[in-house]
Amino acid sequence: MALSTTDGNRLSDHLAKLGTYAQTELGYPCAFDIDYKLLAPFLSYSQNNIGDPFVEGGRYRLNSHEFEREVLEFFAELTHAPDGGWWGYVTNGGTEGNLYGMYLARELFPEGVVYFSQDSHYSVAKNLHFLGMKSIMIRTQANGEMDYDDLKEAIKMRREVTPIIFANIGTTMKEGRDDLQVIRSILDDLAMERRYIHSDAALCGGYAAFLEPRPSWDFSDGADSIAISGHKFFASPIPCGIVLARKAHVERISHAVSYIGTRDTTISGSRDGFSPILLWHAIKSLGVDGMKKRLHKAMAMADYTQLRFQEVGIEARRNAGALTVVIPMPPAEVCTKWQLATSGDISHVICMPHVTKEQIDALVDDIVAARDPTGNAQNTPSYVA
Amino acid sequence: MALSTTDGNRLSDHLAKLGTYAQTELGYPCAFDIDYKLLAPFLSYSQNNIGDPFVEGGRYRLNSHEFEREVLEFFAELTHAPDGGWWGYVTNGGTEGNLYGMYLARELFPEGVVYFSQDSHYSVAKNLHFLGMKSIMIRTQANGEMDYDDLKEAIKMRREVTPIIFANIGTTMKEGRDDLQVIRSILDDLAMERRYIHSDAALCGGYAAFLEPRPSWDFSDGADSIAISGHKFFASPIPCGIVLARKAHVERISHAVSYIGTRDTTISGSRDGFSPILLWHAIKSLGVDGMKKRLHKAMAMADYTQLRFQEVGIEARRNAGALTVVIPMPPAEVCTKWQLATSGDISHVICMPHVTKEQIDALVDDIVAARDPTGNAQNTPSYVA
Repeated sequence: MALSTTDGNRLSDHLAKLGTYAQTELGYPCAFDIDYKLLAPFLSYSQNNIGDPFVEGGRYRLNSHEFEREVLEFFAELTHAPDGGWWGYVTNGGTEGNLYGMYLARELFPEGVVYFSQDSHYSVAKNLHFLGMKSIMIRTQANGEMDYDDLKEAIKMRREVTPIIFANIGTTMKEGRDDLQVIRSILDDLAMERRYIHSDAALCGGYAAFLEPRPSWDFSDGADSIAISGHKFFASPIPCGIVLARKAHVERISHAVSYIGTRDTTISGSRDGFSPILLWHAIKSLGVDGMKKRLHKAMAMADYTQLRFQEVGIEARRNAGALTVVIPMPPAEVCTKWQLATSGDISHVICMPHVTKEQIDALVDDIVAARDPTGNAQNTPSYVA
Repeated sequence: MALSTTDGNRLSDHLAKLGTYAQTELGYPCAFDIDYKLLAPFLSYSQNNIGDPFVEGGRYRLNSHEFEREVLEFFAELTHAPDGGWWGYVTNGGTEGNLYGMYLARELFPEGVVYFSQDSHYSVAKNLHFLGMKSIMIRTQANGEMDYDDLKEAIKMRREVTPIIFANIGTTMKEGRDDLQVIRSILDDLAMERRYIHSDAALCGGYAAFLEPRPSWDFSDGADSIAISGHKFFASPIPCGIVLARKAHVERISHAVSYIGTRDTTISGSRDGFSPILLWHAIKSLGVDGMKKRLHKAMAMADYTQLRFQEVGIEARRNAGALTVVIPMPPAEVCTKWQLATSGDISHVICMPHVTKEQIDALVDDIVAARDPTGNAQNTPSYVA
């Protein structure tokens, strides 16, 4: 078997295009600074991690469960998972991890109501519809963080139902982080002892553990489950993620799935065995120190980005400890060129570890050049309400 | 960043182990004869096909939607999808495709009842529990095919509810294929005009179109949606699959998800952009002729396997046009060595295109050697009821 010349050229052209597009990508939280090409030999094998990574049950031996477990252990430690009291698996991405968290919550509290903020990723509402769960959308503050007063009000009005809190640890547009301590104190205050808290740390889970001051987001802060993406800060070329949950919760689900004839508590059937190796490679080669260094580099670039925007009169806002710099929406051609996501009147630059000063300078120049001929900044609205 | 020598060695050891295990894998439907290593350069980029492959909406440009669409078009033609009347996407595997089919069915017929056979993959019951759908398990015939009398009886007793048929186009253990023509005639007979039929062609979808006589399994036979795996017959090193559905059904779902604030009708959020390129490469380099050749080679090997078992007195059963040869369960050490799945008293060999006569001969020798010292065949039960 071989490709025709035409088809071969199409692949080369596509590869070249990817290279070009990667040079002008500043709007999405995918790091490009780790090249996984050296793991290519694994493409010769169909690894399948189907089922529970902690149960070596299947006869199919081409799996990477061993590496998957080490990846999970690494993140369990980072997220202060209770010793011996957690379970997890490598998912196909943040959405599957969030779906899993909500699935767990539904099994534990079938009559529960999910509270999630209006700045949550669109997949959250999709997931809840999928699972048939009732939900209430909570207002957000201007910085993308949940409006806790609105949350408290909403829960207060329904004290007869178990609250399931879907907390954002880094919203898509503004990298707003909901504070688990504040959420818990609201629940405590209302004597809501039956509760479930899921951390959607798809965006920030890769570095939240290294931020100072430490955000309130993990198991030690009361999370029942946490989802983290592997293709964002860790630059995996294949979308993947980690989901971790308290073991006691998962065991309750196990009973249910055991009843329907399986002990497999994962959502996917066949599970990619290559992704855990990609993540394992990142963890082992970077180490915690390497990750911290990448974070500090990226954080310095976010400082620089915010300053550069402000220098040319563009209002640039940013949450403390965030890699996302929020700006008024630049002209469409700039958004297209630099692949900047937009929402309403705003846009953002996400300073993943590969972003360079040259790229930021070029973006700023492009926005300035796109201003009106009088040289005045465009009259674009700020994101502050 | 670099791996320590110890860690580097662990990866090399794992790779070597995969090579060894691949030599003695006869029990799972993963072909090993296509080496995708030459697509390694794509591992340098984070391709993300998030959202609808037919809508170029997102600003993130590192995607392979163009290749994904061509892959889908290829399978749409193979499955006789109505011209201009289908939609689909590349999934993370057969389970996601089946979940999608059942999700569509639920949205169309919220009060419907799913009928699926007892030989269905364990993930089916898991998926239905996930979606909160009511279901009835139907008996199977000895060959793994649905017991149509039982199906008819079950539907007849509930003519007030819409039947959703989950049809297996290749059961996990016996490669039994449910016949869509027969199923439709039962529904016609009972005047059940509201109906939904999903084909779980995870196993056979890669080659059912090339079988003669043609099985009754695709859109021309009345399927509303079809799921096919990409890591089985097409040997993708990353679990993936194709789901196709009638466009009118998907449009009904679109309204629902549009209501919840998104037009993304896929289940996953971030979607792997590498898998479509793997599948595209297989399609383009093999072509339909190459696929047929691989199928005929594999079918000849299944003939050979059945004969070899019968020669040494092992009862070997096989459905017409199947690559799966069902045998009484061999001793545990043989199952472990050759990675043979077992269920109850049976096991099977799946003759994917990479399987060689030497492997089959070695397996047969191993089973014969494991017989009792008198030289008699083990008194293992046959799968025939």
